[in-house]
Amino acid sequence: MSHEVEALLESRVQACRDKDIDKLMSLYSPDIVYFDVVPPLQFTGTDAVRRNFVRWFDEYDGPIGLETHALKVVASGDVAIAHMFHLDTGQMQSDGSPSRSLWLRSTVCLERTAGQWLITHEHISLPIALDTMQAVLDATP
Amino acid sequence: MSHEVEALLESRVQACRDKDIDKLMSLYSPDIVYFDVVPPLQFTGTDAVRRNFVRWFDEYDGPIGLETHALKVVASGDVAIAHMFHLDTGQMQSDGSPSRSLWLRSTVCLERTAGQWLITHEHISLPIALDTMQAVLDATP
Repeated sequence: MSHEVEALLESRVQACRDKDIDKLMSLYSPDIVYFDVVPPLQFTGTDAVRRNFVRWFDEYDGPIGLETHALKVVASGDVAIAHMFHLDTGQMQSDGSPSRSLWLRSTVCLERTAGQWLITHEHISLPIALDTMQAVLDATP
Repeated sequence: MSHEVEALLESRVQACRDKDIDKLMSLYSPDIVYFDVVPPLQFTGTDAVRRNFVRWFDEYDGPIGLETHALKVVASGDVAIAHMFHLDTGQMQSDGSPSRSLWLRSTVCLERTAGQWLITHEHISLPIALDTMQAVLDATP
């Protein structure tokens, strides 16, 4: 069962690397509740999540480098939990063309309905330094 | 089953309001992997998570106001997932004594072992504005 969930999670990062929005969205439930790095507090439903992924894809000039580290998956019955870090790298579209290299925290919750696992909740974040309220961009595992 | 998990989550916010660190820690697995608002990327194990909660409690002069909103709980077999928003309010210890009022995103993952539910993973965050990389403190649900 964890094996199926791990395969889905690998499809998820591959679809992000390839910027394949249709493949990526096929992994999410219509009822998805998504807490992303960026505001608002949540994106709910397929349309809002899809638009936010496309916005993220468009930040990069070319493919997104996305590695998964420290993956832990637990599944029982029809619910599964995964948490991991992603190393997110790439060349940005912005004029100065800086490259990005960031460690993100990722929690993915899945449910199985009629034999099919789908992501029903996802939470991605960066830590924040309390003294400045700035995102911490150089944290490493 | 969801009922037991909801009762545990209510104990969790009550223990935070009361700054009752022993009660709070009794809800967490020794294997807890905690992604908090503040760095590092993760706190692992009881000692590190306990120290981080005490640090958070000490930011407040008096009790912490903590409300739960938009709670969703799913449980199956021995795994449960919950996500919610917390409205975190209080008087700060810092010299200027500003008051805090913040909406946080909270994902809590639980496992049942020998009949007892414990929190094995928690992820708390604030969204970040991409243009400034500053935490967004005025986001509301």
